[in-house]
Amino acid sequence: MQNNITLKENERIEDLNRRGYRIIQNTDDFRFGIDSTFLASFAKVKPGEKVMDLCSGTGIVMILMDARNNCGEYTGLEISSEVVEMATRSIALNHIEDHMRMEEGDVKMVAEKFPKNSFDVLTVNPPYMPKNAGLLNPNSKKAIARHEILCTLSDVIKAAAYLLKPEGRFYMIHRPSRLGEIFHLAKEYNLSPDVIQMIHPHKEDEATMVLVSMCKGAKKMLHVAHPLIIYKNETEYTDEVLRIYRE
Amino acid sequence: MQNNITLKENERIEDLNRRGYRIIQNTDDFRFGIDSTFLASFAKVKPGEKVMDLCSGTGIVMILMDARNNCGEYTGLEISSEVVEMATRSIALNHIEDHMRMEEGDVKMVAEKFPKNSFDVLTVNPPYMPKNAGLLNPNSKKAIARHEILCTLSDVIKAAAYLLKPEGRFYMIHRPSRLGEIFHLAKEYNLSPDVIQMIHPHKEDEATMVLVSMCKGAKKMLHVAHPLIIYKNETEYTDEVLRIYRE
Repeated sequence: MQNNITLKENERIEDLNRRGYRIIQNTDDFRFGIDSTFLASFAKVKPGEKVMDLCSGTGIVMILMDARNNCGEYTGLEISSEVVEMATRSIALNHIEDHMRMEEGDVKMVAEKFPKNSFDVLTVNPPYMPKNAGLLNPNSKKAIARHEILCTLSDVIKAAAYLLKPEGRFYMIHRPSRLGEIFHLAKEYNLSPDVIQMIHPHKEDEATMVLVSMCKGAKKMLHVAHPLIIYKNETEYTDEVLRIYRE
Repeated sequence: MQNNITLKENERIEDLNRRGYRIIQNTDDFRFGIDSTFLASFAKVKPGEKVMDLCSGTGIVMILMDARNNCGEYTGLEISSEVVEMATRSIALNHIEDHMRMEEGDVKMVAEKFPKNSFDVLTVNPPYMPKNAGLLNPNSKKAIARHEILCTLSDVIKAAAYLLKPEGRFYMIHRPSRLGEIFHLAKEYNLSPDVIQMIHPHKEDEATMVLVSMCKGAKKMLHVAHPLIIYKNETEYTDEVLRIYRE
């Protein structure tokens, strides 16, 4: 019984193990990873707040946030019409259309679609290597390939700064190697990083991901949270990761 | 038997538990902490390299580095003539005058004292709250108190950029709250952060210190090393910290 939701070829429904929430994913395409789970746990939403999820893809980050927080009004922005359509079916599958919707659009064009200062919370799990963007517009492929990393991070932070209300919060997960650039762009767009958390596969490993929280406008003191360690041995998650999955 | 080294009032000699190295400290003043030990372990020196230790104080960082690496030629820069004199006695105490010396001078005036591009390695454990600097010059006390944090970090990074040879390495320990500023200043002075390591008292605590390595000129990819955790319980050091003390 799938709630009258049609699945297309190669699509399957995954149970999110939280309040019955589920998501449709294409088994050929990008499937959500532990980074989305970490970001959804890191981002804080209060009742009544308007949340925008940039580069929303399947909508996984905001669907997990809604499953976890049971509050907030969500808009997912995604550039691929196909993916928007699939995410919209996930929203219907979860019966959360009253407080969550997808919008098709480009992060670089948010000013054409949304008023300035209109969201309390921004989340983004940006493509670390934004190759999908190139597939949609063959003409821009080359330019995107050349500048893929810089442009995307810059676009995302610029969009966040535009969309957020003053003192609104921005939550992102990215590669630790990009931290310098993240700090530079934050300064350029008047966002103040207030928490970063490093994510390490094992406690003796380099960080492979970093969670970043920023506040628009207000000057905040930066805190570096305790390290988030994924595995306690070769195969088992740490208690903290199990708690993130279960809480 | 103290090697004909005179101790002044309130001074005592501390054994560094490494190749017989010792240091003179004033029990009334700043005494070295675990941060100096971490910095001396983090900083890498190769045979024949010229090392400058800024804000050198008692000389503890470079004395620990020399005890650990048994190579390199060290210059410690310190603004207080009294402290320079004490550190010079520590150098004599360890019989390392042939490859280590103290210079009295201000980090802000290095260009008057040293040629540009003249050191392979720079180390600094800067005063997080540079109150000592204020005591030496009553006239500048107020200005230093007002701008104490920003000016000092900026001065230190500017001095490092001046003193280092191209591709020279800069090693610093500081507060995590200053990371944004560290990245901005690094960019301004063409230093490329290549490794940062967070230091947490316990694994579930925020970082209280951060080790930063930068390279002059060359564009490096940033790595975030595994977290350095100080205590494994309320009172006992982790194995890693014990290893740092003993290795």
